[in-house]
Amino acid sequence: MKIPSSQDPRVVVIGGGFAGLELARKLRNKPCQLVLLDKNNYFNFQPLLYQVATSGLEPNSIAYPLRRVFRNARNIFFRMAEVERIDPEAQSVHTSIGAITYDYLVVATGSQANYFGLDPSKLLPLKSVPQALQLRNHILVEFEKALLASDPEKMESHTNFVVVGAGPTGVELAGALGEMKNFVLPRDYPELDFSAMNIHLVEGADRVLPTMSEKASERARRYLGELGVQVHLRTLIREYDGKTIEIAGRRIPSRNLIWTAGVKAASLPGLEPALSKSGRLVVDAFNRLASFRNIFAIGDVAEMATEENPKGHPMLAPVAIQQGRHLARNLLRIQQGKALIPFRFFDKGTMATIGRNRAVADWGRLRLGGFPAWLAWMFVHLFTLVGFRNRLVVLVNWVYNYFTYDKALRLIIKRGKNLEETFVETPLEAETTN
Amino acid sequence: MKIPSSQDPRVVVIGGGFAGLELARKLRNKPCQLVLLDKNNYFNFQPLLYQVATSGLEPNSIAYPLRRVFRNARNIFFRMAEVERIDPEAQSVHTSIGAITYDYLVVATGSQANYFGLDPSKLLPLKSVPQALQLRNHILVEFEKALLASDPEKMESHTNFVVVGAGPTGVELAGALGEMKNFVLPRDYPELDFSAMNIHLVEGADRVLPTMSEKASERARRYLGELGVQVHLRTLIREYDGKTIEIAGRRIPSRNLIWTAGVKAASLPGLEPALSKSGRLVVDAFNRLASFRNIFAIGDVAEMATEENPKGHPMLAPVAIQQGRHLARNLLRIQQGKALIPFRFFDKGTMATIGRNRAVADWGRLRLGGFPAWLAWMFVHLFTLVGFRNRLVVLVNWVYNYFTYDKALRLIIKRGKNLEETFVETPLEAETTN
Repeated sequence: MKIPSSQDPRVVVIGGGFAGLELARKLRNKPCQLVLLDKNNYFNFQPLLYQVATSGLEPNSIAYPLRRVFRNARNIFFRMAEVERIDPEAQSVHTSIGAITYDYLVVATGSQANYFGLDPSKLLPLKSVPQALQLRNHILVEFEKALLASDPEKMESHTNFVVVGAGPTGVELAGALGEMKNFVLPRDYPELDFSAMNIHLVEGADRVLPTMSEKASERARRYLGELGVQVHLRTLIREYDGKTIEIAGRRIPSRNLIWTAGVKAASLPGLEPALSKSGRLVVDAFNRLASFRNIFAIGDVAEMATEENPKGHPMLAPVAIQQGRHLARNLLRIQQGKALIPFRFFDKGTMATIGRNRAVADWGRLRLGGFPAWLAWMFVHLFTLVGFRNRLVVLVNWVYNYFTYDKALRLIIKRGKNLEETFVETPLEAETTN
Repeated sequence: MKIPSSQDPRVVVIGGGFAGLELARKLRNKPCQLVLLDKNNYFNFQPLLYQVATSGLEPNSIAYPLRRVFRNARNIFFRMAEVERIDPEAQSVHTSIGAITYDYLVVATGSQANYFGLDPSKLLPLKSVPQALQLRNHILVEFEKALLASDPEKMESHTNFVVVGAGPTGVELAGALGEMKNFVLPRDYPELDFSAMNIHLVEGADRVLPTMSEKASERARRYLGELGVQVHLRTLIREYDGKTIEIAGRRIPSRNLIWTAGVKAASLPGLEPALSKSGRLVVDAFNRLASFRNIFAIGDVAEMATEENPKGHPMLAPVAIQQGRHLARNLLRIQQGKALIPFRFFDKGTMATIGRNRAVADWGRLRLGGFPAWLAWMFVHLFTLVGFRNRLVVLVNWVYNYFTYDKALRLIIKRGKNLEETFVETPLEAETTN
C-alpha cells in the first residue's frame, strides 16, 4: 500500500465507524500519521438505517464520505480496503490492496449480525447501507407480488412481516412497518386487504428493549400494540425455510424475516490470543490488548471488564465514541511519555422511538415517554448526524413525512437486465508493489 | 394478470416515462380502465440522471413512485412487469407476470442506448437510475484505484474520462466532471495530481449540441473549454478494449468510457409490421399504427413523419409529453364517436447547462447564454420535477452544492461480500393463473 513516509509514528485504524471516526478526528493534525482503513468510503449512522429500509430516508442522509471528514487533515490517509489479517510479529496489516506496517494498531471493526445458525440467505439483515436498501426493495416488491398472489396463503406470505429481536433497531423497525401499514401502503395498494398484513416482533427476553428500564419496555410495548404490532416474548426462532415460520406453536406464512437479533464482534485473523469467550477482543482499562502491547481495540469489538459490566460494555454507539475519543488522548500521552488514563464510560442514557409522536428515553433516573421523548429523540439524532446538509435534508424529509403521513422514497431500484450486463464489479486489487 | 373487470374499454399503456405518465394522468377518473405497465415502480426524470451520476443528487429526488401519482385514481391500475411480446390478433400483451387483453394498446416504451456494435460490458451507459448509481460508484472507485496505481499510465487510465456523444446529456455530464475535477476531487484526494485527469468529449457531428442553434453550440463549446474539457468533433469511436481508446490518432489510457451517444427506439416483439428503417413504430398524425388500428405509439418509440421532421420528431421529453396529452384527448373522442384531431408539436425550445452559472437556451428566435440561461435552466427543471418534496430536496442540494462548491453524495454503495450472500433477487413471476 502506498503511504507517504513520515517521521511521526504511524497509527493504523481499522474501521471508520463511530469509534474509529471519533479517534481519527481527535488525532487530526496531531503529531502522528494516521492511516484509516474501511471497506466502505463512508461512515454510516446505523441508528437511522431502519428509516432507509422503510422509505423514510435516503442513504446519503445517514451516510457521509470519510474523505470529506478529513479534508485539510494533513496527517490522515484514508484507504478503501478489506482487511484480511493482522501479523503482530511483523507489525503489519494485510489487506485487499496490499500490506501496511504500523507502530500502533487500533482495531475498531465493530460488530456483525449473529444468525445463531440460521441460513443468512433466507434472512433480511439490517447492519449496512446496502442491506437497508435491499430491505427497502424487498418490502416494496413483496406488495407488488401480493397483488399477483393466486391464493390467500401465498398473499399473506408476502404481507406478513416477522422482525426478530426487540432491541432499539427491531422495535423502531416494527413501529415503522406498523405506520406503513396504517398510513402509507393502503393508499398505494387499494386493491389489497391490509387486515392480512401482520407484523410480528419476536424477542427471546421477557420484555422489549431489554437493555432499557422496565418502565421504557412497558411503554414501548403499549405503543407497539397501538400500531398493531404483535409482540412475542421469550420466543426464539430455531428454524426458517424462507416461506413459513413457527411462533409459539402457530404457523405463520411469511417470506419476510427481518433479522435484528444479536450481533457478534467482528474480530480479525491474527488476534486470536486476545479473543474472549464471546468473541470480542479483551482489553485493559486503556483499551490495550494484553497479548500485544501496541494494539488497541475500541467500540463493539472491545471487551473491557468493569464493575458495572464484568462482560464488557454494551455494544452501543456512545461507548464507541467515548472510547475513540479517550484512546486518542492516550495515544498522544504515550508520545509525550505520560502515564495512560483508564477509560470510564459516562452513560448519557438511551432512547428508542416507536412511530410518530411516541418514544421512550432513560436518562439517569429520568424515564421519559410519549411526545416529549419523541421530540428529544428527533433532536438528539438530528444533531448527532454528520454534516449540515444531511441534517437539513433529514429534517425536510421528517417534516414532510410527519405532515403528509407519507414515506416518499418508495423506489424499487433493481439491477435490471441491461444493468446486469453493464454492471462493473469494482473490487480494489492490490498493485504489484506496496 | 389479475385486473378487476370493468364496463369501460381497457387501455393498456406500456411504459411509465414522460409519454405514458402524461397520458395516464390525463385519463385519471375518465370513462376507461387504464392498466399501466412498467418494469420499474417509478417514473424517472431522465434529464437530471447525470447529476445522480456525479454525486449531485440522490435518485429519490429525480424519481417518483408511480403508485403515488395515481392514488385516488379509481380507474388506473399499475403493474410492475416486463413486457415480452404483443399479440395483436388476440389483442393481448404477454408479460413476466402473465398476459392481459386490451381494447386499446398504447406503446410508450421510449428508447434505449445504441452502442453501434461496441461491447456494452465495457461501456458506462446513462439511461436509467441503476446505471446512474453504477456510474457514480464507478467514478468514485476509479479515484480510489488511482491512489494505488503503480505507474503513471495505470494511474491515468483511472483518472481519464471519455464521454461519447455531445448531446445535452453528454455536454452536461462532461461539464459536471469538469467541475468535480476543478472544485471537488482535489480536496478529497490531495495525494493525486489532477493535471493527470483529462476529460474528453467525443462527438461525431461537426459541433456540440448538434440539435441546438449554432450560437448555442459555440457558447457551449467555449464553456466546456473553460472547464478544461477537451472536445473532439467529427470523431467516431469504432473500438474500445476497456483500457485504452484511440481518439484522432492519439492513444488515451482510460477505463472510463461513458456512453451517451445515440439511442434507438425500444419496440416490442409482435409489432414488426409497423417498424420503420430506424426501428421506430410508424404512426399516423393520430399516433396510430397503420397496421393495427387499435394500437398507438407515443414518445421516442413513435415515428410520425411531418413536414419539419420527415423522419419523425426528435426523441425529446417535450414531444413525448405533448403526444401523451394529445392521445389522451383522442382516446376520449373515440369513445364519444368524435373525429380524431391530428397531433402538432409545439416547440417550447431546448436548453443545456454546463457547470455552475453557465447554460445555453434556444427559445424560438431567442438565444440565451451564461447566467440568465443557467437560472432559467434551474427553474424549468425544478418545476418540471414530480412532487413537492422532490423539488424541495433538489433545491436544498443545488443551493448547498452551489455555495460549497461541493457534491455531497460521494458514497460508493457496493454489494459487499455479506450482501452478495443475502442479496435477494426479486423478479416478479407469473402466478399459475391469470
